[in-house]
Amino acid sequence: MKMKAILSGITFFVIIFLAGCTREQPKDVGTTIRIDNIVDLTHTLTSDFPFIPVKKLTYPFALIPMATLKDNGVEANSWKIHEHLGTHTDAPNHFIANQKSLDQLELKDLIVPVVVIDIEEKASKNSDAVLTVEDIMTFEKAFGKIPDHACVMMYSGWEKHLRDSLFVGLDSQQVKHYPGFSNDAIKFLVEERNIAGIGVDVLSFDPGIDENYTGHKTLFEAGKWGVECVANLDKIPKTGATVIVAAPKVGKATGGFSRIIAVW
Amino acid sequence: MKMKAILSGITFFVIIFLAGCTREQPKDVGTTIRIDNIVDLTHTLTSDFPFIPVKKLTYPFALIPMATLKDNGVEANSWKIHEHLGTHTDAPNHFIANQKSLDQLELKDLIVPVVVIDIEEKASKNSDAVLTVEDIMTFEKAFGKIPDHACVMMYSGWEKHLRDSLFVGLDSQQVKHYPGFSNDAIKFLVEERNIAGIGVDVLSFDPGIDENYTGHKTLFEAGKWGVECVANLDKIPKTGATVIVAAPKVGKATGGFSRIIAVW
Ligand SMILES: [Zn+2]
Ligand SMILES: [Zn+2]
Repeated sequence: MKMKAILSGITFFVIIFLAGCTREQPKDVGTTIRIDNIVDLTHTLTSDFPFIPVKKLTYPFALIPMATLKDNGVEANSWKIHEHLGTHTDAPNHFIANQKSLDQLELKDLIVPVVVIDIEEKASKNSDAVLTVEDIMTFEKAFGKIPDHACVMMYSGWEKHLRDSLFVGLDSQQVKHYPGFSNDAIKFLVEERNIAGIGVDVLSFDPGIDENYTGHKTLFEAGKWGVECVANLDKIPKTGATVIVAAPKVGKATGGFSRIIAVW
Repeated sequence: MKMKAILSGITFFVIIFLAGCTREQPKDVGTTIRIDNIVDLTHTLTSDFPFIPVKKLTYPFALIPMATLKDNGVEANSWKIHEHLGTHTDAPNHFIANQKSLDQLELKDLIVPVVVIDIEEKASKNSDAVLTVEDIMTFEKAFGKIPDHACVMMYSGWEKHLRDSLFVGLDSQQVKHYPGFSNDAIKFLVEERNIAGIGVDVLSFDPGIDENYTGHKTLFEAGKWGVECVANLDKIPKTGATVIVAAPKVGKATGGFSRIIAVW
């Protein structure tokens, strides 16, 4: 009987530690995360980085030397940059009045579990392919339900077009063509799953052909963020990693070039 | 005997889980970290944020509207910004030729254990106070040796002067006065401790009176980074937290406005 008491004591001890060791569970604030692997989901920003052509907006990113080691003994530059360039975060105030600006997003909503839904096969055949509710269902059958408070990333394989014309995909009518989330998929994620935000490996999370940015409005009405031009989504697990969306804390900004990092 | 075998089996199990649960150990890549607490070490950047006055550099940060919801149905801005403004990271190429630029810093060197050395008492009596090797020794006696690959932050309490003239501390000769690391302390950290980088709650990690930026050169020769204008260092533990220095991945940059986050 004494042995049995010791045994049950140790079993209790094991359970306590199992409860503390949440390695295999969905990652979130208030849990333990592993940092065995770090993948940078950020593209390096340079002046030749592709961007969405907008009337009156002709300049991309510019790095302007202010001082050089040769002339001044110190090297420093200023930047001309806009809020929706490179690997960046969109804040809800980008399309919705009185919604949160970039600096108002809370860190607990920017360090969250991440899942990757792969639509590369259909996107490779159709630049206008969209991630649908059905794709979410197929993902969940294979990888389990999207964790609470997750970032749902679309991987279309578009990163390989970063340096060719397919990345913006302009046709002769100046209409853009690249994959994106369907508005129904965004609606489903906002209403039926408690997401923190979404992300894509293309210029915008609405498909290029949607000039109304319907999905942006659906997402931002719900106060969620989006990340665009995300890199290396084929180098992280489909589920089980944590994403750190390190958006620049600029007052009143509608978005901004961000460091986005996956760890697991 | 059978009981004993089960017991030792369970003990083995416990040890395996104890080994996996490295909650109380120094945090680093390849270990488990808790995210029970998140503290934002970043100040919000606005156009009135204080900056180091430099000849020919007169503008602070500017957010310039590009489109508004009222006129365009979308809100977006461009930014005029320079690399050493607000809560930001300095890359070694800021002062040393052929050293790493901001985009070349590796994420494994930017997600590291963090310690905070508090010199508030002497700084409150002397704007030119410096963090010395002796301060490091006193810290280590109280909190243990600085962990391998750590970020060493100086807390001077200067954050409370952010909105008054003491933050830059210009005297009648236009000489700056705010605390910093002594060059000897930086030399010690680089040579005797294997640090990843250092940080301060003031404008620059060299004390304001050092117009030669001696400590910058010592740190950057060693290929380490620095973070400046760090917020909320009084709200994280002196040791045991992990810092995420999410520097913007801009090609060839010498520094940049960063999101800096502590978790533990
Ligand atoms: Zn955007
Ligand atoms: Zn700097």
